Amino acid sequence: MTESISLVEAFQQTKYQIAGNGKRNIQNLKEAFEQIDGQRESDMYGNGKIIETFQEKMAAYLGKESAVFIPSGTMAQQIALRIWCDEKGIKKVAYHPLSHLEIHEESGLKELHHIETVLLGEVAGLIGLEDIRNLDQEIACLLLELPQREIGGQLPDYKTIEEISEYCKTNGIRLHLDGARLFEILPYYQKSAEEVCSLFDSVYISFYKGIGGIAGAILAGDNDFTIQSKVWKRRHGGDLISLYPYIISANYYFDKRISKMEQYYENAIELAAFFNSCPFIETKPAVPVSNMFHVHISQSKAKLEVLFKEIYYNTGIGLTSYLKETSQSSVSFEVSVGDQYHSIPKDKLQSVFQLLQDKLK
Amino acid sequence: MTESISLVEAFQQTKYQIAGNGKRNIQNLKEAFEQIDGQRESDMYGNGKIIETFQEKMAAYLGKESAVFIPSGTMAQQIALRIWCDEKGIKKVAYHPLSHLEIHEESGLKELHHIETVLLGEVAGLIGLEDIRNLDQEIACLLLELPQREIGGQLPDYKTIEEISEYCKTNGIRLHLDGARLFEILPYYQKSAEEVCSLFDSVYISFYKGIGGIAGAILAGDNDFTIQSKVWKRRHGGDLISLYPYIISANYYFDKRISKMEQYYENAIELAAFFNSCPFIETKPAVPVSNMFHVHISQSKAKLEVLFKEIYYNTGIGLTSYLKETSQSSVSFEVSVGDQYHSIPKDKLQSVFQLLQDKLK
Repeated sequence: MTESISLVEAFQQTKYQIAGNGKRNIQNLKEAFEQIDGQRESDMYGNGKIIETFQEKMAAYLGKESAVFIPSGTMAQQIALRIWCDEKGIKKVAYHPLSHLEIHEESGLKELHHIETVLLGEVAGLIGLEDIRNLDQEIACLLLELPQREIGGQLPDYKTIEEISEYCKTNGIRLHLDGARLFEILPYYQKSAEEVCSLFDSVYISFYKGIGGIAGAILAGDNDFTIQSKVWKRRHGGDLISLYPYIISANYYFDKRISKMEQYYENAIELAAFFNSCPFIETKPAVPVSNMFHVHISQSKAKLEVLFKEIYYNTGIGLTSYLKETSQSSVSFEVSVGDQYHSIPKDKLQSVFQLLQDKLK
Repeated sequence: MTESISLVEAFQQTKYQIAGNGKRNIQNLKEAFEQIDGQRESDMYGNGKIIETFQEKMAAYLGKESAVFIPSGTMAQQIALRIWCDEKGIKKVAYHPLSHLEIHEESGLKELHHIETVLLGEVAGLIGLEDIRNLDQEIACLLLELPQREIGGQLPDYKTIEEISEYCKTNGIRLHLDGARLFEILPYYQKSAEEVCSLFDSVYISFYKGIGGIAGAILAGDNDFTIQSKVWKRRHGGDLISLYPYIISANYYFDKRISKMEQYYENAIELAAFFNSCPFIETKPAVPVSNMFHVHISQSKAKLEVLFKEIYYNTGIGLTSYLKETSQSSVSFEVSVGDQYHSIPKDKLQSVFQLLQDKLK
């Protein structure tokens, strides 16, 4: 019965999904705009009430002097690194080997900005203070991604960030935060966004991860940094005449979900424990430090696809829409907890993992 | 009574405005999405039905093999020029001295792509075949903007474009169309978009000029060009997870207004004649060749502001929201005809220009 359909199709037919805030469909936009007065004027090339008010709100939230709304994180972060490189007159930055800039942006930083990159730390680990101390070349900026998404959303302890920040300040290295998932790590650190951001010269945040907006980013820093960011935003082609479709929705979903990050975090811990109770399964991190983690299963993709489809069909609960083959006998997938986990009845959750345990034995 | 408010405020209070498609407000988005099923899935990083269908529709309309939706014209055109420069191994392009790339993009082409530019033709005139023939340096690409917006939306005769296209083809120069207002010139040339575009290797079109969409651009060419465009779109930070707010609205307003370009063009001719009937006023071009023209008035800005505010107050018709000082005793402003002109009763139009004639005497 489930043989003829793909895993993603089987997943889409489930009543419940353990991860995310629900489908990325047009209703997301409609909901955000439902209560918005149609007579409100569009922003105009970075000016106007809608964009300025949101930028001020986010600057205040992050504890920075100012902020600029930018269509994408790719654009925002290239801009930040370029500004810091130009300031120092050194076109070199350092980041983790699995940074978004290194693996998802078609080398935009190199092709557009001619910035060299130093890959810092082990692929499977986090950047530590020693990695920066041992740098044998001068860099303008260090980019830290918190949490480190591609290794399951791991985090250094807070003291390490403080030490790195102190070291960078002392040694004339700008520190930039890839905070695509900044909101999501605050419950673990028990810090405000402002406290975390005070350790960084510039900060990027995203509105379509835990917040569940449509797209868009904020880049924040001091006033001089923001003035330059706006020039680079125009150069990149990001200074659209109207960005309000993203801004209004970012603001709407920020207000709707910012207070739920603690819940997502706690749910992620519970959910990871469910996975870790099954044979052949372990999560990274073992105990999540945000709303996300990676699930690794030491079984073949072919076997697991059949097994997962059966489980989806029998329980109505979808665990993942894809399995990424990491070897002939292992797979992994990412889980980011959002609104949906909370709505699954606890007994149904227990039974789906009981079933998974039994079938994997 | 009108002294205490600014020209733009007086303009905003008028019942009718001679130019444009109406206010740029959030209703533009709401209207476009009203009939759209909320369950339709978002595009995802350049993939999915919504974006692919629209790209195919525009490629067919333009008579090109393929097309890619890009958030802005600034991004689209830098990408096109970069691709053609890389192809030829020469980082040099030519365009008009008042090209959008030269005066509105903070030198993005130079700062991001390190492309040198040759300014071709007189500031106040159009690029002619001789200008290209007389080039004393090799270029990879020539960008033609049709119509040339900053000089009132002027156009060369069609034969000149054909000759330029032929010359470029023969001499290994790629020809790129800045078609931000391509739709708007088709009635004058009495050509299809496909016919015009067949003279160019690559074409950019915009959806928030005559079409009145929210933002967004299409870049079209052959398949190899489009494949490369998508890579550069990602590098620029334009490959957003969801572009549907712009795509759905571009499609909606394209369908709504594409057949009205003839009307806008004819209205522009009539409206320019009204202006030219007044002392001290002349339009450029004298007879419009698209929906747009510039109005030049040989009077001081201070005097005209008072006069225009009175007229707006007395007639309820707004002529312009701004006056750009071109000397101590002259101003200019741009007029792009859209839906609004058509809705103004003809007798009201005649009386507003009668009043303007009388007051300028």
